[in-house]
Amino acid sequence: MLQRHLGGRWADIRATFTDQIRQIPLSDTENLDTAEHRVATLQALQATARTGIQRLGFDEKYGGGGDPGASITVFEILAQADLSLMVKAGVQWGLFGGAINALGTDVHHEKYLRPIMDADLIGCFAMTETGHGSDVQRIRTTATYDPATDEFVVHSPDSSARKDYIGNAANDGRLAVVFAQLVTAAGVHGPHALLVPIRDEAGATMQGVTITDCGRKGGLNGVDNGRLMFSQVRVPRQALLNRYGAVDEKGEYSSPVESSSRRFFTMLGTLVRGRVSVAGSAGSATKKALAIAVRYGDVRRQFAAGADAEETVLLDYPAYQRTLLPVLARTYALHFAQDELLRIMHEVQTAAEPDEQQQRELESRAAGMKALATWHASEAVSVCREACGGAGYLAENQITQLKADLDVFTTFEGANTVLLQLAGKGLMTQYREHVGDLDTVGMVGFIAEQVLGDVAEITSARSLLQRIRMIGGRESDSASLRDRDWQLALFADRTEHLVSSLGRRIQKAAKDGADSETISSRTQNHVLRAARAHVEHLVLQGFAVSIAKAEDPDLVALLGAVCDLHVLSEIERDAAWFLEHDRLTVSQTKTVSLGIDQLCAELRPHARLLVDGFSIPEEWLTAPILFEERERQASARC
Amino acid sequence: MLQRHLGGRWADIRATFTDQIRQIPLSDTENLDTAEHRVATLQALQATARTGIQRLGFDEKYGGGGDPGASITVFEILAQADLSLMVKAGVQWGLFGGAINALGTDVHHEKYLRPIMDADLIGCFAMTETGHGSDVQRIRTTATYDPATDEFVVHSPDSSARKDYIGNAANDGRLAVVFAQLVTAAGVHGPHALLVPIRDEAGATMQGVTITDCGRKGGLNGVDNGRLMFSQVRVPRQALLNRYGAVDEKGEYSSPVESSSRRFFTMLGTLVRGRVSVAGSAGSATKKALAIAVRYGDVRRQFAAGADAEETVLLDYPAYQRTLLPVLARTYALHFAQDELLRIMHEVQTAAEPDEQQQRELESRAAGMKALATWHASEAVSVCREACGGAGYLAENQITQLKADLDVFTTFEGANTVLLQLAGKGLMTQYREHVGDLDTVGMVGFIAEQVLGDVAEITSARSLLQRIRMIGGRESDSASLRDRDWQLALFADRTEHLVSSLGRRIQKAAKDGADSETISSRTQNHVLRAARAHVEHLVLQGFAVSIAKAEDPDLVALLGAVCDLHVLSEIERDAAWFLEHDRLTVSQTKTVSLGIDQLCAELRPHARLLVDGFSIPEEWLTAPILFEERERQASARC
Repeated sequence: MLQRHLGGRWADIRATFTDQIRQIPLSDTENLDTAEHRVATLQALQATARTGIQRLGFDEKYGGGGDPGASITVFEILAQADLSLMVKAGVQWGLFGGAINALGTDVHHEKYLRPIMDADLIGCFAMTETGHGSDVQRIRTTATYDPATDEFVVHSPDSSARKDYIGNAANDGRLAVVFAQLVTAAGVHGPHALLVPIRDEAGATMQGVTITDCGRKGGLNGVDNGRLMFSQVRVPRQALLNRYGAVDEKGEYSSPVESSSRRFFTMLGTLVRGRVSVAGSAGSATKKALAIAVRYGDVRRQFAAGADAEETVLLDYPAYQRTLLPVLARTYALHFAQDELLRIMHEVQTAAEPDEQQQRELESRAAGMKALATWHASEAVSVCREACGGAGYLAENQITQLKADLDVFTTFEGANTVLLQLAGKGLMTQYREHVGDLDTVGMVGFIAEQVLGDVAEITSARSLLQRIRMIGGRESDSASLRDRDWQLALFADRTEHLVSSLGRRIQKAAKDGADSETISSRTQNHVLRAARAHVEHLVLQGFAVSIAKAEDPDLVALLGAVCDLHVLSEIERDAAWFLEHDRLTVSQTKTVSLGIDQLCAELRPHARLLVDGFSIPEEWLTAPILFEERERQASARC
Repeated sequence: MLQRHLGGRWADIRATFTDQIRQIPLSDTENLDTAEHRVATLQALQATARTGIQRLGFDEKYGGGGDPGASITVFEILAQADLSLMVKAGVQWGLFGGAINALGTDVHHEKYLRPIMDADLIGCFAMTETGHGSDVQRIRTTATYDPATDEFVVHSPDSSARKDYIGNAANDGRLAVVFAQLVTAAGVHGPHALLVPIRDEAGATMQGVTITDCGRKGGLNGVDNGRLMFSQVRVPRQALLNRYGAVDEKGEYSSPVESSSRRFFTMLGTLVRGRVSVAGSAGSATKKALAIAVRYGDVRRQFAAGADAEETVLLDYPAYQRTLLPVLARTYALHFAQDELLRIMHEVQTAAEPDEQQQRELESRAAGMKALATWHASEAVSVCREACGGAGYLAENQITQLKADLDVFTTFEGANTVLLQLAGKGLMTQYREHVGDLDTVGMVGFIAEQVLGDVAEITSARSLLQRIRMIGGRESDSASLRDRDWQLALFADRTEHLVSSLGRRIQKAAKDGADSETISSRTQNHVLRAARAHVEHLVLQGFAVSIAKAEDPDLVALLGAVCDLHVLSEIERDAAWFLEHDRLTVSQTKTVSLGIDQLCAELRPHARLLVDGFSIPEEWLTAPILFEERERQASARC
């Protein structure tokens, strides 16, 4: 029942896909060298292609499934099986295929989508340059239209313009989606994407292209990352993916989006699925690490209360519970938030009429969720490794590979700090647009609308704070700390305070004559804090919505306790803020800490059930500590 | 001058050793497979042996240097060069050689110390078993005296008694120090160490010994960890390292330490150097990662304030400073605390008369420092990796290797949580012994004596709190937050409060009839918190002592600012506690956060100088991002 509930909207599809991916032979990667690991991952990619599930994200017109939401679940399941495979699939079908799908037009779709889906044509997504990773709008590769031959000339002017960290570039890629500044006689039109062949059918590097290998990485060594340099490489005019910007045979540029900057962000926006799938995949890896650590902690014994007493199971130690269970609770919270993100993404992307406002909110939400989910994943997997002690450090027990592979998730598809700033700026843009110079009443209305949605209704200016005090009181009371409305109001109010105080700081600085760069620099940490608070609130909303959907009272109670543990842990993490802003009293924050201890004890008997809820197939949990520990204890007792 | 100051008491020796270790050829390990990496690391170990610096930790009588403090600096420098090499050296000379040195007697020293120092005899330290890693007192391997042959029979009764994760066991070891329950006709005498040959000269496994390979690990793959099982293996009576427990030819057991448990902890105590060197080596690796990240952040540019403006250097962003600089400040703090730990260890171990009280305090300090230093190292290296973005994930840029290697430092030589509990229990033992049922005055006197030392003088019951309020006031005042006496009093008082409230909880629970296991379980998190606060106070003391030794006013000012950043960051981390216990007001904790921002801006121009202070030889900083970035920017400008 728990498994079914966690499956969410795509529960059936998840189960079916999991069964299909279970058929794919996965190599024992821990002892492969880089070359062997790459070969094995390519083979696994091709085997995945044969299942057909990768088609879901593409248009039905070309044999796709037209189901964006379901397509993300494919990546989430691949991530449970093998992160190198998931990333290689993400490069091939998400980034490379996805860019052609989203930025190209019929002529490109007709020619390329089928072989891409079938993994007959392996490709690259060449956006990042050595000199520009986060600030991709400033890439330096150029694509200059030559009317004499009706071609574009793709060129890397210097080593800082080198395309870097490009998946599938070192070995397997034949064609690359290359982002370059588009140049015509009329001038520079900003970054656009073009299809540039980098290797011929036989695998030989094309003339004018220089490919180097990024070599060994901290993880994900099944993916062949490389670097691309272009020396006056000529491609036909039709190589331009021309949905958002086209050049005709006379060399005239046209675009449905006037501003160069807005055009670029529109193009980037179509690639939002990448961030959604990275957030989900990070969640999958976190769950796998937790399944191993919790199951080990549930049987491993160490130290005994007395000389003749049986040794104590690790998970019965309060310190051990305090280490693992809040991480487990947060993993649940992020799971439901991801579910909600997926639902929104699916609806935006399958809407009959695109809604620009919704698209922007989706991008902002995806950016924030990607940041929080991948940071959590890195921390969680570290906690799991340490919780398994020396056994956790052996490659055979799987956690070190997860840790090494996950490490870069905080960086790729957008560096987390940059993404969180994006989310924060999105929030402030909405704030300015909706609220402008309105008074606090307007502001709270805005927050209520934006961040509370239909979970709670806020109608008057001070009602958030009133609500917090009315429900929560000012004295310690562990029951009220577990009141969901109180928790939602507390988190909404934190966002409201951070956003409106940020707004006031910006207005004041502007009045004092500070330029926008100075303001941006001075308020950077405040923006990050507001964005984080906002996403935390979205996460809690997602959890609350999901609990509301559950029907079985036992399930509701269990999920409620998990949600409470997540919420109290987040309050404890930020307790100083709540105290400093008089949102909670000292008596309350002390009760929060005690409440965490109590919830850990309350949830401890359900720990195994909770990780089983993740539905990870047993054949992907190969860690010997999962079964050897019990056997050893049995033999030691004989 | 900064470098000289950081060099501390063994500055000259550090410089000389660094020069010697620089001569050792280090392989480019990122592309080696496990077998090749092990060979390369063994060769580097042998090259290290030829320098002679490994002799320092051994008795002069056998060609050693008799300088324990200096011997730790060797490990710290090896850790800057290569962590696999440092760990292999730690196994060979620290654990294996160190155990024979500390637990054996003349007959063992005479026979083994020279070939061990020269790496002609490679050995293992076989204490940990699969079933008992933290609770080593309960190991199950037995060594039973057989008077008929005057031998011990070493035996592993079952798979839980298998020696596990043993360095040098999979390939290179010939002889192992094996910990086993010593059994004579009179009974079981608890764990003792015996010398058991595991391979012959030619490398063939000895009869009765089963060796398996732990295989690939998360890092440190230059070290060959393995597992040992013994099936009725016979060794002569003289194989027992008999300093703390001997068996005569009649099979009679004798020991200078009566209690079996105390005897075991006495034996363990002699191995304290391992923890000290792990703490120091974790610091070395942290410094190396910081050197790379700070130097990269000091030249790397991304995003510009305007279309035509030059792009901004990463370290000029407040969010980037907030990420890296507090980590750098804490690394400084731990450096000086390590220096102090080294000094104490050296004095205790070179004292004419061993002082048991000092020995126990050293063990407690080393346990706590090892925990905090290795946790910090793991976090710091993660921060550095992320700060370097995609470049940080390439093996060539060194950080991923440091991260992978460092991961297990939180586990080996004692799992950090267990060590911190040990430190906490040590603190409580002292509390009970010194204070007993004394009133608060006695308690504060105890804390003043134990944790303030000669840095501050505390004479009356409420003086710590009075002192905090007198200096710090109750209002925000950034100058008073930087008053070192106030900081010391604040940290001392936190320890005092945590220890005395823990004492009261324990007394109350005991009065209510709770058994010691229940009390121990209920107070586990409180003990950890008290221990952590205690070590944080020791760390601050170490920093304060070091600043007091500096003479140059610029150096004093610089180190003062670094210390302030460290202290304010620690206060911010635990701000809720200070608010909840009315140690700080809301106005003060807000000022602390602002103070961190200010200190980051103040220290930013010195960031490069501060990492250069670590004196890491340039040839160990091979990361291409350290030099390529400037070149690329230069070429991009042309």
